[in-house]
Amino acid sequence: MKIDNANNSSSNRPTHKHEEQLIAAEEEEEEQMCRTIEVVDLPMPSPPLLAADGDEFSLVPPLNFSMVDNGIFRSGFPDSANFAFLQTLRLRSIIYLCPEPYPDANTEFLKSDGIRLFQFEIEGHKEPFVNIPEDMIREALKVLLDVRNHPVLIHCKRGKHRTGCLVGCLRKLQRWCLSSVFDEYQRYAAAKARISDQRFMELFDISSLKHLPMSFSCLKSLQLFSSASISFFRLQ
Amino acid sequence: MKIDNANNSSSNRPTHKHEEQLIAAEEEEEEQMCRTIEVVDLPMPSPPLLAADGDEFSLVPPLNFSMVDNGIFRSGFPDSANFAFLQTLRLRSIIYLCPEPYPDANTEFLKSDGIRLFQFEIEGHKEPFVNIPEDMIREALKVLLDVRNHPVLIHCKRGKHRTGCLVGCLRKLQRWCLSSVFDEYQRYAAAKARISDQRFMELFDISSLKHLPMSFSCLKSLQLFSSASISFFRLQ
Repeated sequence: MKIDNANNSSSNRPTHKHEEQLIAAEEEEEEQMCRTIEVVDLPMPSPPLLAADGDEFSLVPPLNFSMVDNGIFRSGFPDSANFAFLQTLRLRSIIYLCPEPYPDANTEFLKSDGIRLFQFEIEGHKEPFVNIPEDMIREALKVLLDVRNHPVLIHCKRGKHRTGCLVGCLRKLQRWCLSSVFDEYQRYAAAKARISDQRFMELFDISSLKHLPMSFSCLKSLQLFSSASISFFRLQ
Repeated sequence: MKIDNANNSSSNRPTHKHEEQLIAAEEEEEEQMCRTIEVVDLPMPSPPLLAADGDEFSLVPPLNFSMVDNGIFRSGFPDSANFAFLQTLRLRSIIYLCPEPYPDANTEFLKSDGIRLFQFEIEGHKEPFVNIPEDMIREALKVLLDVRNHPVLIHCKRGKHRTGCLVGCLRKLQRWCLSSVFDEYQRYAAAKARISDQRFMELFDISSLKHLPMSFSCLKSLQLFSSASISFFRLQ
């Protein structure tokens, strides 16, 4: 798999030499940190059709599925039973937070629906051997905030720990108080909630992003952010 | 408090005499079932301002807060600590599912922000004395689905049972399988989950609405529904 760092939004970018170098370095770093699969030049999928006798038709959301914000969803690992439901979301991309390769059936689904996969290989350590890589969460956050990737689904295995940490960091950016961040995390992690995850979220430094005006809905306020610092991947 | 049943979307309405009578009867029924408070002719609230030194500024979502779908939120009872957060949602209305009068501070907040209140007086019975009024949930569902009321926040006291039942019925309309409806209900009700609520959702009859094409996002598909069968309240 190859990644093309050609930037499709170069007209919005700063032209200063030093900044260009910084961006190039950043893109290189992202390349190491994130795998992407993309199928381009496919027509947009047509809207999913529901059976005429709707009573019989059931959509099956993935485990722990929920809407996070406009254009952002979270869940556990989706399987083929969930594909019809996922089609109703008209996803443009998926952020996958596990090191394991994506299953063939899921990859086929992404290809057929023109969905791009951003994979961040975060190990699913159990306590007390926990080491959530802050740099990966930061890069995943950038992909998540880039509205060009919306609608986007974040998932790991069970939608509890890795997904919970990424969503928690998003909430910090959205200025949620910490107790509400933890409350949301615990709603999905339930009996499996980890103190170490909550400590990670508490310590996660958003200062480099604090100049951003953030509200609950990040759609508009992040346009500036996305065009200023996010690279755009495209497979050759 | 008076309710004016003058219909602001009459141009979209059927003109047949019998249908008009049916709609008038329906509006009368809604009048009995739902109290509304509305402040009209107020300018849209300006976007909430965040402190310049963003690190110090914390937004406090209400208990059990979550996004349900585009333009639809759920939570427990909001208090004054949550008002700044609620302003970021730019709510147009609130669906309140308890019989108790709305507190003065909350009513003031609604007035100052031009938010309309739809109150459905559903008692918060505990098992085994449970009797969720299906007709009220059905009327609340109509208000919920009317995009003219979006963004809308649904809340009761703790955002567990009454709110959970209304959201569960919405999910049935969205063709979610029952196990996913229950899974979502249980995520918010946690240790307080009630079999009777889940039985109510299972038995709730969506057949009168089954002709509607529904996807996860109800924004577009429900325009037709809202203009066809929802009355529009306006305070004199």
